[in-house]
Amino acid sequence: KQTPASASTSSSTPPVSNVGQIVKYGFPSTDNLRSYDDFILSYDRRTRTANWVLEHLTQDKVTRVKGIERSKMKFIEDTSIHEFHRSTNKDYQGSGYDRGHLAAAANHRHSEKAMNQTFLLSNTAPQVGEGFNRNAWNNLEKYVRAVARNNKNVYVCTGPLYLPRKEPDGKTYVKYEVIGQNHVAVPTHFFKVLLIENEKGQFDLQSYVMPNQPLPDIKLQHFLVPLETIERAAGLLFYQNIPKTSYRKINAAAS
Amino acid sequence: KQTPASASTSSSTPPVSNVGQIVKYGFPSTDNLRSYDDFILSYDRRTRTANWVLEHLTQDKVTRVKGIERSKMKFIEDTSIHEFHRSTNKDYQGSGYDRGHLAAAANHRHSEKAMNQTFLLSNTAPQVGEGFNRNAWNNLEKYVRAVARNNKNVYVCTGPLYLPRKEPDGKTYVKYEVIGQNHVAVPTHFFKVLLIENEKGQFDLQSYVMPNQPLPDIKLQHFLVPLETIERAAGLLFYQNIPKTSYRKINAAAS
Ligand SMILES: [Mg+2]
Ligand SMILES: [Mg+2]
Repeated sequence: KQTPASASTSSSTPPVSNVGQIVKYGFPSTDNLRSYDDFILSYDRRTRTANWVLEHLTQDKVTRVKGIERSKMKFIEDTSIHEFHRSTNKDYQGSGYDRGHLAAAANHRHSEKAMNQTFLLSNTAPQVGEGFNRNAWNNLEKYVRAVARNNKNVYVCTGPLYLPRKEPDGKTYVKYEVIGQNHVAVPTHFFKVLLIENEKGQFDLQSYVMPNQPLPDIKLQHFLVPLETIERAAGLLFYQNIPKTSYRKINAAAS
Repeated sequence: KQTPASASTSSSTPPVSNVGQIVKYGFPSTDNLRSYDDFILSYDRRTRTANWVLEHLTQDKVTRVKGIERSKMKFIEDTSIHEFHRSTNKDYQGSGYDRGHLAAAANHRHSEKAMNQTFLLSNTAPQVGEGFNRNAWNNLEKYVRAVARNNKNVYVCTGPLYLPRKEPDGKTYVKYEVIGQNHVAVPTHFFKVLLIENEKGQFDLQSYVMPNQPLPDIKLQHFLVPLETIERAAGLLFYQNIPKTSYRKINAAAS
């Protein structure tokens, strides 16, 4: 059976790759990674929000430092992103959605600059305020900081999901709202995947999905889902350098 | 006014970037480019289809070579993509959609290997067959080859769009079907952006959008749209190395 890799070449031109010629006038896209002082972000220029944000947390980083005040900070446009693909404060105005942090501001209390960087709009996505950003999701963020205070290292990957649903016609659809002139996508859900290294160097993994809607005040463990579910839906692979068999606990009761 | 770039750092830890530590256990994603003999593809692991495919065409490449037959080739899975994020032939079965080429098979008639590579499922997206893939879209592909036969170089960028629509509730939504067990996205539209260099070294640009539905048999020029419309919707920027003021014609009547 022939595959592209093994196909014999009965060609009129030599079988050399043509890459240099093809991209002579530029790549349509490549540059989507942004490194900030204390988090790394992959930007999705189509949805105008991040694909994922990755943080490394320790007890030091989440400890409050006098004079570093979240209340003094303002959300600003990420001018490193082309204006065609950038979200603005105006996009959120009147939308009914909060500018929800992906890397949480309070995770970076050790440095004014690091906390300021979490206010870049590339690090936000439209979140339901009451019952979600200000409640259930905030509880999850607080829990993450508690874990950071009680372990050696915590890696947190956070991002949006656009989950499909079956409709009455029997077909399955992805449907999400977009807001503002720049059509900023409103994710249907958000994920958070925690890699926790304790003082003994043992690893635990916890993976959460929450729907972007007002949620009842229930235990965080109700939002644990298999890692593979998130990896498939988000198009990502988490902490690949750690063999899945080497975790001490995966999605054990969280709190 | 303070911005993250200029913020003074009243920090308890040195303001050094933490990137190496953050990605210690791997990036959630980075690797989405694929170079084949005669086209380059950016893969979207979330939608299980390409973001864009870029080709470079000349008269030689689109000329039929005896013995290279499209009819002998079969669509195959792209095993370079993780199975969580890969589309399969089974996903398309019974969906009612064609496996539509993005880089068209007949654009690569000069080499059996190059044509075979266009049959990788990463280079396909679900397309309406009758009235679209087999008709209007096919006409556009044939037109591209005619342009390649009559010019020095043609660069073609092709990809899916997921365009928003206003609904009766006054809000705007993106909605698209997904097919098969791997939830392969069915784009609402497709784009094709042509950069045409004639024998004198002058550049023309033509940018087309077609809805993924049965279309009437009308002239291709009806599907011309401003480049910026595609760049905004797709999250891409085309042929950035060519100043937009240096084009001889942009979206002049096509055929
Ligand atoms: Mg928040
Ligand atoms: Mg086709």
